[in-house]
Amino acid sequence: MAALGRSERIVLGVVALFTVLAGVAHYGGWPSGLAFALATVALAGLAHVVGVGTEQVGRRFGPAVTGVLQSTLGNLPELFVVIFALHDGETVVAQTSIIGSLFANALLVLGLVIVVGARAAPDGVMRFRSKLPMDTSTLLLLTSFIIVIVGLAHASHDPASKHVREISSIGAVALLLVYVAWVIPYLRSDAAVEPQPGEEEHGEPMPMGLAVGLLVLGGAGSAFVSDWFVSALRPTIDALNVSDAFAGIVIVAIAGNAVENFAGILLAAKGKSDLAISVVKNSVAQVAAFLYPVLVLISLLFAHQLTFALAPVYIGTLLLTSLAVWQITGDGEAVAFEGWALVAIYAILAALTLYE
Amino acid sequence: MAALGRSERIVLGVVALFTVLAGVAHYGGWPSGLAFALATVALAGLAHVVGVGTEQVGRRFGPAVTGVLQSTLGNLPELFVVIFALHDGETVVAQTSIIGSLFANALLVLGLVIVVGARAAPDGVMRFRSKLPMDTSTLLLLTSFIIVIVGLAHASHDPASKHVREISSIGAVALLLVYVAWVIPYLRSDAAVEPQPGEEEHGEPMPMGLAVGLLVLGGAGSAFVSDWFVSALRPTIDALNVSDAFAGIVIVAIAGNAVENFAGILLAAKGKSDLAISVVKNSVAQVAAFLYPVLVLISLLFAHQLTFALAPVYIGTLLLTSLAVWQITGDGEAVAFEGWALVAIYAILAALTLYE
Amino acid sequence: MAALGRSERIVLGVVALFTVLAGVAHYGGWPSGLAFALATVALAGLAHVVGVGTEQVGRRFGPAVTGVLQSTLGNLPELFVVIFALHDGETVVAQTSIIGSLFANALLVLGLVIVVGARAAPDGVMRFRSKLPMDTSTLLLLTSFIIVIVGLAHASHDPASKHVREISSIGAVALLLVYVAWVIPYLRSDAAVEPQPGEEEHGEPMPMGLAVGLLVLGGAGSAFVSDWFVSALRPTIDALNVSDAFAGIVIVAIAGNAVENFAGILLAAKGKSDLAISVVKNSVAQVAAFLYPVLVLISLLFAHQLTFALAPVYIGTLLLTSLAVWQITGDGEAVAFEGWALVAIYAILAALTLYE
Repeated sequence: MAALGRSERIVLGVVALFTVLAGVAHYGGWPSGLAFALATVALAGLAHVVGVGTEQVGRRFGPAVTGVLQSTLGNLPELFVVIFALHDGETVVAQTSIIGSLFANALLVLGLVIVVGARAAPDGVMRFRSKLPMDTSTLLLLTSFIIVIVGLAHASHDPASKHVREISSIGAVALLLVYVAWVIPYLRSDAAVEPQPGEEEHGEPMPMGLAVGLLVLGGAGSAFVSDWFVSALRPTIDALNVSDAFAGIVIVAIAGNAVENFAGILLAAKGKSDLAISVVKNSVAQVAAFLYPVLVLISLLFAHQLTFALAPVYIGTLLLTSLAVWQITGDGEAVAFEGWALVAIYAILAALTLYE
Repeated sequence: MAALGRSERIVLGVVALFTVLAGVAHYGGWPSGLAFALATVALAGLAHVVGVGTEQVGRRFGPAVTGVLQSTLGNLPELFVVIFALHDGETVVAQTSIIGSLFANALLVLGLVIVVGARAAPDGVMRFRSKLPMDTSTLLLLTSFIIVIVGLAHASHDPASKHVREISSIGAVALLLVYVAWVIPYLRSDAAVEPQPGEEEHGEPMPMGLAVGLLVLGGAGSAFVSDWFVSALRPTIDALNVSDAFAGIVIVAIAGNAVENFAGILLAAKGKSDLAISVVKNSVAQVAAFLYPVLVLISLLFAHQLTFALAPVYIGTLLLTSLAVWQITGDGEAVAFEGWALVAIYAILAALTLYE
Repeated sequence: MAALGRSERIVLGVVALFTVLAGVAHYGGWPSGLAFALATVALAGLAHVVGVGTEQVGRRFGPAVTGVLQSTLGNLPELFVVIFALHDGETVVAQTSIIGSLFANALLVLGLVIVVGARAAPDGVMRFRSKLPMDTSTLLLLTSFIIVIVGLAHASHDPASKHVREISSIGAVALLLVYVAWVIPYLRSDAAVEPQPGEEEHGEPMPMGLAVGLLVLGGAGSAFVSDWFVSALRPTIDALNVSDAFAGIVIVAIAGNAVENFAGILLAAKGKSDLAISVVKNSVAQVAAFLYPVLVLISLLFAHQLTFALAPVYIGTLLLTSLAVWQITGDGEAVAFEGWALVAIYAILAALTLYE
C-alpha cells in the first residue's frame, strides 16, 4: 500500500467504507432509499477502483492491452447491474438502464462537455479531431439499425417478430465483430498513445501485484454491490413513485456513469478537448457496440432475455441521438448551443419517462 | 412621410389599399375566394411593412437588436394567422400552416434558391458558408426529436401519450432555451453585421417616429387582416374542394411567406449566395425553434391546444426534410439537381396532401 | 468476330452456351434448381455482354452517350426480371428484388469494396472523391422520402393511403426528373471522362456493327432468360423452403448484380478507389432513382402494380442504409471497419428475411 499516494489511499478508504456500509444496509434491512444511495456511491467508487487497476495493469503491456482491458473490465459494474436486474426479472430496468447509459453519455454528458469545452475555448468554439466522433456515429448507426428493424418487425407483426431472440443474437454477434474490427486498429493507432485521463496524478506506476489486487477487489466488490443496488432499486422506485423507465433512463444511468462523466467534464474545463471527447465517445461506443450485444448474448442463459426490442419512444430517441451526435460532432467543432441542444434532448426524454 | 422614397410610398399606398379592400370584402360579405385573395395580398404586404419597420428601428440599436426584433416581430402575421385559426377551432389548418411554413421555406424556397443560385454561379456550383446551414440543421433535428417521440408515444399508445400537452410544453420551453442560446451569439457574431436584404434600396435611415409608426401600424394591421384571412379560408377551402392539409401545407404556407421567399430567390439570382441562404435558413430556424414553440405555449390559453403531435406523414416529412437540408447544404456547396431534389420532396408532399 | 480478342470470344461462347442450356432446361422440364442455376449464370453473362456492347457503341458518341446508354440499357436484365415477376403475379419477389438489388449494392458490395480498398491502401484508409457518394446520398434520401411517407400514410390509415398508386406515380415522375437533372451535368463533367472499368482490356474499339449486334443479342437474350429465371424461381423457393423475401433480397439481388459487383471489388483490390466507388455508387443511384421509378411507371400497364409501398422493415432498412452510406462515404475516406459495418447491416437484414 506504500506504493499508493496519500490521496489515493484516502479514496480507497472511502470506497471501502461505502462498500461496507452498503453491505450493512443491505443485510441489516436499512431503509431502501438509504441502502440505494449507499450502494450507488459504493458502485461509482468501485468503478473508479476498477478503472485505476485496469490502467495500471495495462501499463505493463502498452496501450493496446490497456484499451482492451478498459473495454472489457471498465464496464464491469454496469454489466453486473444489468445481469442482476435480469436475474431478478426486472427486464424494463435492465433494458432501460443500458439504453439510458447510452443516452446519458451521448446526450447529457457529451452536451455538458461541449458547453464547458466551448466556454473554455478562447473563441467559444471547441475543436477536436473528428475521427473518433465519426467512428462512434458509425457504430451508433449500426446499433440503431438493428434496433429499428427489430422494432419495425414487431410493430408491423411481421412473421420475423416471432424470432426477436434469434435476430437479436445474430445482430449481437455482427455488432461485436464490427466492434472488434474497429477497436483493434483504433488501439494500435496513435489515438491510444495519448495520455489517458487521470494519468498525470499517477506519475509512478504501481507494483503489479497491487494493480491486479485492485482489479480483483474492485471487480468482486462491484459484483456484490450491484446485487444490493438492484435489490434496493425496486422499493426505492416504489417509494419515489417514479416510473420504471425513469429509474432506468435517469437514475441508474446517471449513477452508473457518474465518475466517468465527471472526468469528461473536468477535462473539457481544462481545455483538453480531444481527451474529453475521447472519454465520452469511447463510453458511448462501448455501451452501444460492446456492452449491449454482450449482455444480449449473456442473457441467453437467463429466464428473462435481453433483446434489441425496445419501446418505440426509445427507438426514435436512439435514431435521433445518433443523428444529432453525428451532426454536431462530425465536423470536429462545437459551440455551446450545440451542447445545450444535446442536453435538451436528454431533458425532454427524461420528462417523457416521468409519464411512462 | 417625406422621409420615404417615392417607390416606398407607392408600396405603402398599395399595401394600405389592399388592407382596406380586404376589410371591405370581409365586412361587406364579398365572395369568399375574392376576400381570401385580397387578405392574402394584404397580409404579404403588411409582412413587408413590419419587416421594413423592424429593420429601421433596429438600425438605431445595432445588429443584435435588429435580429431579435426580426425574430420576434417578423413572424407577427404568421403568428396571428395561427392564433386566429386556433381561436376558430381550425386546429388542422393551424398546425399544418406552421409545419407547412417550415416545409415551404426549407424545401420549396431553399430548393429554388439553390437552383437559381447554382445557375448564377459561373461553374454551376453555389457556394456559401456552412455555419448557418449546420446550425439550422441542429435546430431542425431538435424540433424533429420532440415531434418524433411525441408521435411514437402516441402511435404506440404509451402511457406518456396521455400527456402530450405537458410534454409539448416542456419541449417548447427546452426548444426556446436552445434557440436563445443559439441566437444571442449568432447576433453578436459577424454574421449579423453583413448587410440585410433590401438594405441597399433604403440608403437613408428613416426618422425614428416613422419607423415605430410603420411597426405599430403593420403589426396592428396584420392582426386584423389575419382574422379576415382565417375567416375567408374555410369557405374558400370548401369552394375549391381541397383538403384542410393541402390548404395549410400549400396555400397558407406559400401565401404567408411570399415576400420573404421572393427576396431570397432574388438575392440568389444576383449571386449573393450567403445572403440568400441566410434569409431562407433564418426563416426555417425561426419557424422550427421559435414560432412553433411560442405558439405551443400561447395555445395553452386557448380551448384548442397546439401540440407537437403531428400526423405520421408530416413527422416523416419533417425528419427527412431535416436530413435532406443537412445533407445538401451542410458542405457549403450545392448544385442545381440538389435544389430540384428539395423541390421534388415538396411537390410530392403537396400531391399527397391533395388526397388527405 | 475477328475483331474480338481471344478471351472475349471465349466469354461470349460460354455465355451463349449457358443461355442455350438455360433454354433447354426451361423447355425440357429439367429440375427447377438446375434450371434456376443455369438461368442465373446466363443472366449474369448476358448482363456482361450488354455492358460490353453499350460501352463499345457509346465510344462512337463520347462519354455522355455511353453514360445514358449504360443507365438505360445496363439495367435491362434486371428490368426484365422484375417485369416478368410482375407479369406472373410474383409481386413480393418483384418488389424485394429491386430493393434487394439496392441493398446488395449499397451494403454488401460497397462494404466489400471498402474492406478490400482499405486493405489495398498503404495506410489502411481508402480515399476517393466525395462528390459522387454525396450525390448518391441525395438521390437515396429522395427515394427514401417517397417510400417513408407512403409507408407512414399506409401505417396510419391516412385517406392518402387509398391512393398509393397515384402518389407512387407522381413520386416516380418527380424522381426521374431529379435523376435527369443529376445525370446530364454528371455525364458532361470530367467524372465521365475517366476510363470506365474494363476499358483497359478492350484497347481496340470494336466495329460498330458488332457492338450493336452484341447489344441487340444481349438485350433480346436477357429478355428470354429473365422469363425462364422467374419461372424457375417459384419452384426453387419452394424446394429450398426459404421465404419470398429472402429470395428477393438475397438470391435474386446477388445473382442479378454478380458481374458488376465483382468488377467493383476487383477495382478496389487494384487500388483504383475512385473507379471502384464510381461503379458501385452509380449502380445504387440508378436502381434507386432510375430503375425503381421506371418500373413503377411501366407497371401501370400490368394487372399487378409496383408501388413505393414497402414492408416497414425494408423502409427502415432503406432509411438507415441511406444514412450509413452517407455517413461512411460522405467524407471521401473509409477504413475497413466501416466496410464491415455495411456488410453487417446486410447480413442482419438477410438473417431477418429468413424468418419472414
